[in-house]
Formats: sequence, C-alpha cells, structure tokens
Amino acid sequence: MKVIKFGGSSLASAEQLTKVLNIVKNDPTRKFVVVSAPGKRNDTDTKVTDALIAYYKSYKNGDDVTENQSWIIARYQSICDELGIPGAVMANISADIKALASLPIQGNKFLYDTFLAAGENNNAKLIAEYFIENGINAKYIHPLDAGIIVTPEPGNARLLPSSNEKINYLNELEETLVIPGFFGVTEKGDICTFSRGGSDITGSIVAAGVHAELYENFTDVDGIFAAHPGIINNPASITELTYKEMRELAYAGFSVLHDEALLPAYRASVPLVIKNTNNPEHPGTRIVAKRSVTGSPVVGIAADGDFTSLNISKYLMNREIGFGRKVLHILEKLGIRFEHMPTGIDDMSVIMRNRYLTKQIERSVIQNLTESLQPDILHFEKNLSIIMIVGEDMNEHIGVTARAANALAKAGINIEMLSQGSSEVSVMFIVKSNQEKAAIKALYQAFFEA
Amino acid sequence: MKVIKFGGSSLASAEQLTKVLNIVKNDPTRKFVVVSAPGKRNDTDTKVTDALIAYYKSYKNGDDVTENQSWIIARYQSICDELGIPGAVMANISADIKALASLPIQGNKFLYDTFLAAGENNNAKLIAEYFIENGINAKYIHPLDAGIIVTPEPGNARLLPSSNEKINYLNELEETLVIPGFFGVTEKGDICTFSRGGSDITGSIVAAGVHAELYENFTDVDGIFAAHPGIINNPASITELTYKEMRELAYAGFSVLHDEALLPAYRASVPLVIKNTNNPEHPGTRIVAKRSVTGSPVVGIAADGDFTSLNISKYLMNREIGFGRKVLHILEKLGIRFEHMPTGIDDMSVIMRNRYLTKQIERSVIQNLTESLQPDILHFEKNLSIIMIVGEDMNEHIGVTARAANALAKAGINIEMLSQGSSEVSVMFIVKSNQEKAAIKALYQAFFEA
Repeated sequence: MKVIKFGGSSLASAEQLTKVLNIVKNDPTRKFVVVSAPGKRNDTDTKVTDALIAYYKSYKNGDDVTENQSWIIARYQSICDELGIPGAVMANISADIKALASLPIQGNKFLYDTFLAAGENNNAKLIAEYFIENGINAKYIHPLDAGIIVTPEPGNARLLPSSNEKINYLNELEETLVIPGFFGVTEKGDICTFSRGGSDITGSIVAAGVHAELYENFTDVDGIFAAHPGIINNPASITELTYKEMRELAYAGFSVLHDEALLPAYRASVPLVIKNTNNPEHPGTRIVAKRSVTGSPVVGIAADGDFTSLNISKYLMNREIGFGRKVLHILEKLGIRFEHMPTGIDDMSVIMRNRYLTKQIERSVIQNLTESLQPDILHFEKNLSIIMIVGEDMNEHIGVTARAANALAKAGINIEMLSQGSSEVSVMFIVKSNQEKAAIKALYQAFFEA
Repeated sequence: MKVIKFGGSSLASAEQLTKVLNIVKNDPTRKFVVVSAPGKRNDTDTKVTDALIAYYKSYKNGDDVTENQSWIIARYQSICDELGIPGAVMANISADIKALASLPIQGNKFLYDTFLAAGENNNAKLIAEYFIENGINAKYIHPLDAGIIVTPEPGNARLLPSSNEKINYLNELEETLVIPGFFGVTEKGDICTFSRGGSDITGSIVAAGVHAELYENFTDVDGIFAAHPGIINNPASITELTYKEMRELAYAGFSVLHDEALLPAYRASVPLVIKNTNNPEHPGTRIVAKRSVTGSPVVGIAADGDFTSLNISKYLMNREIGFGRKVLHILEKLGIRFEHMPTGIDDMSVIMRNRYLTKQIERSVIQNLTESLQPDILHFEKNLSIIMIVGEDMNEHIGVTARAANALAKAGINIEMLSQGSSEVSVMFIVKSNQEKAAIKALYQAFFEA
C-alpha cells in the first residue's frame, strides 16, 4: 500500500483535481491520500491558508469577519461547482468555516492553529466527496480518527510515539482514506499544527505508521534537479537519491521537501518518490535508504548564501584544553547555533547562519570571547556561501575533492574554507557569496558535463 | 644585541667549544650566551643530564653515589683539561656536584629539578671561564641573578610576568653574560626546570626580556628542511619562516625547536634564527613575524601519524542545538583533548592523538556518547596520519588545495578528511597511516619539484 500526498498547487482548481483523481484511480494501492489546502490558481491568486490567516486576524481584532468567511467559502464552492460535487459537503464546509468565529479567543493558545488547519481539513472533505462521486470507495478521515495525536506545541507539534500503533490500525479500513495534512490533535483534543512543510510531515507520519511500501509526494516539478535551474540551464534531474544525500542537499538550499518531513519515513525505512501531478508519467526522484552505485560520484550540487564565519586565532591555542568547547559554549549561551568548525593548529573558524546575528549579538560574542579566551585575532567574516557537492559514492572515487578544487581554481574562485569529513557523503566549500553562482557553474561543468 | 643559545651537541667537547668561542668572538653583539649541559660526544656517550638522573636515583635510593659523582666531575674535568682552563672553576664545579648529595630528600619537591639543573649550571661556569681565558669579557650569571623567577611547578616552570623587568636590567651589564639554560628560580629560592626544550625556553625568555634584535639558536643542523630528510632525498632547506608557519610544522612532526620555546620571543617580536655550530657560515633558517613573499605558496610539508578519529553520525544531528559542544564536553571530562573537528551536515569527526586513548577510555567514550546523544553511527577510526602543507602566502595562490588534492589523487591516495580553515596558513589532509610517506612524496613533488 502507498501513501500519496498532494501539495496545494495540485489541488488549486477543478483541472488539477481531475489529474489527482486519475492518479489515485490509476493505482489501487494508493490507499492513503494526504491533502493540503487549495493553493494558488495563478500568480495573483490567494492561497486558502493565507485567507484563513486574514480571517483569524479580523476575528481576533473584533473586526467584521463576513467578508473573510465569504471569500473562503466561495473558494471551496467554486471547486465544487466546477467538479459537480453535490451540495451536502459544501454545507458542512461552510458551517465549519463560519464556526471558527465562535471559538474562544482568551487563553486559547490553539486558536491560530485551528483557523489554519481548517484549510486542509475542509479540502479533505471536499476531495473525499469528489472521489466517491467518481467511483472510488473513499472516506474522509480526521487526524483524531487517524490516530495522529501530537504534543501541545502550537505551530511545532510532534507526534506522540504511542500514535504509531493507532495509525497502523488504518490498514484495517478498506476505503481509500483522504486525510488532511498539516495538523494533528493533542491528547486534550486541541488542533495543533506541524512546522514548515506540515502536509509533507503528515504524509511521512502516515507512511511510517502504516508501513507503506512507498510514500509518493506529488508536487509541481518532475523531481529534483542536480543543481538549481535558475543557475544551470536544463540541469540533469536526479533519478535516485539516498536520504542522507537529500538531507545534505536540503541543508544547502534544495527546498523541494523540508528535511524534517523526511524523518518519520526515514526512520521507518519507507522509500519516498517526488513526482509531478502535471506529468505523472515522469518517474520523478526516488529517495531511498540505499541506492545502487551510479556513474557519477556526485549526485547534486547545492548552495546557500546565508553564512558568516567567526575567525579566531591564538598562538598556542591548540595547547589550551577546552578552548574549542568553551567557544561553542559561549555561542550557545548567546543563542547561536554553529554549523561547522574548520580548524588549523592555532586558529579556528565557527560557521553560523546569518540569522543568528545582530549587531548587538556580535558585540556580545566579541566581548565574551575576548574576556574568556584572550584570542590574538577575533573577527566576523560576512557574505559567505556554502557549496556542497553531494554523493554517497564519493568514497569510492579517489580524486573527487581534487576535481572539485581544480574546477574552482580554473574558474579563479578562491576556496575560503573547505571541509571533508569522514562520512564522505559530501565535500563542503565556503566561498565569497559574490562567487557562489560562478562556483556552482564550475562544479556542475566538472561533474555533469565533463 | 643578540641572544645566542647553544645546544648540548655544540658543547660536548673541546673541539665543539672552540667553534662556540669563535662564533661568540666573531660578533661583539652576541652578548647573552645561553648554554645547555654537555651532550654526547659520540653515539655511545652519555649526556651529562642522563648521568645526573642516574645520580639522583642512586641518592634517593640511599645507594653509594661516589661513582655517579666521579663520572660527572671527570666529564667536566676532561673538557677543562683539553681547553687548558685553570683549576679554580673545576674546584667549584666539583664541590657543586658533590653538594647535591647533601640536599634534603623528604618533602623536597624540587630535588629532581635541582639535580638536573646542575648540568647546565656548571657548564655555564666552565664556559664563562673558558671565554675569559680567551679574551672575552665574560661573566657567568645564575638565573637568580639574571632575574629568571618562575612558578613553583617542577619540570614545568613558567616565567613570572614580573620577571621581564629584572631580565631587561641585564642590558646594563657590560660583560658577555653566560647563562645556564633549562631552569629558573622560584620566589622562595628553589631551582625549578622548564618543560621539554628547556634551554630553548631560557634563550627565548632572555631574548624577550632584553628586547634582543635576534635570538640565535645554534644546533647541529643547517636549519629546517621543507620535508623530512628521512622521506625526501636532499629536501630543500627553508630560508625564512613565520612563527605561525613554524608552529604548524612543529605540530605535525617538525621537532627542531619545541614550539612552546618560541612563545616568549614570538610575543616580544624577536626574530629567531636556527643555525649550525658546525657550519656557522650557512645562513640557517630565520623565523620571523612576517616574511616577504617567496616563490612557492608552500614552505614546508609536515606529517604525524599519531591520530585516531571518532566518527559520529546522526540523522538531523545538525538540528540539535549543542550537539557538537556536548561531544567535546564528554571527551574533555574523560581527559581527551580534541585536535580537529571536520563536520558534514549530520556527521562529525573528532580527531585526537592516540595517546589519549586506552581500551577503557574508548569504552567510556562510546558509552557516554551513546547515552547522552543516541547517535546512529559511532566508531573509532585508527591509524590515521595528519599531513599539513604550510605557507602563509597560500591565500594569494588560488588553487593550492587543488594542486595538493590532485597530487594525492594521482598517487592513488584517498583523502580521508580534509580541513582548510580561514587562516589559510595550512591545509590539513588526513590519510591512512600506511599512505603517509607516499602522500608526503606526492606533495613534495607537486610543490618543490614541479
């Protein structure tokens, strides 16, 4: 049995939903369908989720919410009309949307989550009805009934470990189940949403819970490219990736799937495939625990230009026990998470994301480190990009680092820092951000066009 | 004015001392002469310091010490005889050596240091007398009178910061001062020795204290080679090095000067030169704060085969705040100092020297890390060598890493790990120890023979 998840752009219009219907009908093992809220139909359109945020704000401010409600209800209504879905489900959806405006505001920490979740929840009702009308033995199922019981952390819910057994029980039901993504229910019965990429998380949780043979994640792209198509013209698309490789690529800018969403499927060893609703014949990109060796040692090149390096030098630093640990401890106390720590003998660099830094925090870092460790040199180096070349077969290919470093040297790009760890799943280069694109081009050429 | 230090092999015989005399006479600015104890005259000879250790052991065990005393006294006597130095200084030396056997044993934590220091101390008396006999206005000066006042840490003395002013006062004396190396005197008047390379430390301290224009360190080699002569035939010798470069090379196996000895001179910006007593015309190797750019981006290649890597992987490790810091903290509590920490996204390696590890400690590391951090993969990787290519001009040479990685790839050597930090004074490669020599050869060829 498969778990299949559709994103908002796949569910935005009657035209898209027709494709979804055919996809589900085409394979009777597609038994668990996880859906997002309706997305944009075109660039100027509003997502239902954004409309729900506006509705929430109006309600909380005590403003008139009639217009908010009408827009959202009309949005669902238009889909129903186009698809010819009978009125009963629309009455249910309409009542549900209106009922949000009678929820308690004071002391209700789940109010925002409950508003937002209504987008997915009502879309699941609509789609289940659409499936039934078109001959699929389908059934809408609320996360409460699906067993998706979560921690009471608004916007950051995590599945309770005990839930897996309940979710597994879904295997006993004979219908094709339509499950709203993005949220679960707390033990006290409150609606609580997942973090970013929430519907992907629901799909991953269900796939793990029912021990699916495959988790199909339908989006609006044919899969994952080996490099960013905005930088490389017609980049190669990746047929198969390991979870580890996906994780390394996702870290440095590949954003097809949010990597936390992968965790439940990864832990349960469920393979995942990213496919295109608009081109379902394309095999897409499979993400697996272990793939067969391919020709190239590098499967993808990712980059992210969001980094700062804190450079520290001190003569005989290497003799001071605990120096590195103390640096990390001071940063941690100031709320800074370090990403990498390349070291020389008497110098170290701590690489962090820009978002942890403000002028004030930078001053505190300098002050605290100066007082505690008396370094000779201590300064922030800004505007750095991390470029990762990723591939699990790298360790079987002597010379990958040489090939990459050569390509960068030939393109006149200085490697500010370089780290290749023991896993050999990736090599990380740090370059100045204004050389990021040139670096990606040089590396792509070296590994995919040579 | 210059500080000039002679090592034990330069002071082992009358023949050597004649060279020393000429070196000092040749340059009237050589005003501060720091001397070691007499070294070996040939491969089967015994160093005076080793004879003093035997003497100490006999005395402490309550054994007869007559033979120990006689051997040491005869050793100094033979030098005096050969050089024709009058008997008065020998009477003083002889009494001093014998007096060691009347020092209190119980509760005397400086006993061992006092025995050892007698080697340098008496040699300084002898050499001062020899200089005077040969027309130099010389004077023996005890560290107490030279102002070398140290912390009371036997075998690991450190200069008290207040001493620098006293040492600077030596500039007021008009004689050429002969100062025994290796030890200082505590505030309570006890003899206390420095750590390894102790006479080099004395030279460095005096050079800093008197603000010398140069610290000349005379050994039995023409200077520092760019790579180990046991691996590379006739390696290039280095004309000029920066302190930072010297430090990086010393870290990975270059042992001409113990790097802690450099610290006082480094801090006081005194340049240092390593020269050969047996070939004083050779310019040697200068160690300076800042050198002029030379042709090659790499000045030296060093290696050390003493390392183990602790490899840790955990899916989404990167999301766990404080993961790296916790790892370092656990290692620190078990007495392990980390050297480097190359990181991927969900994996990190902690490089440490083998000497911190025993079977028992390894088990504790695995157990503690497993309990605290639940990694997916956790294992020690043994038999690793660090190879450093060192050169401060590297940052002006795009492609140094590429050239190095290429050379290793062509030689079929896999780079297990690689780290290039922000300072760009060095690039560190980790390879399997059985490939260390091949790696050095490949790198030497790439940077010195290409």
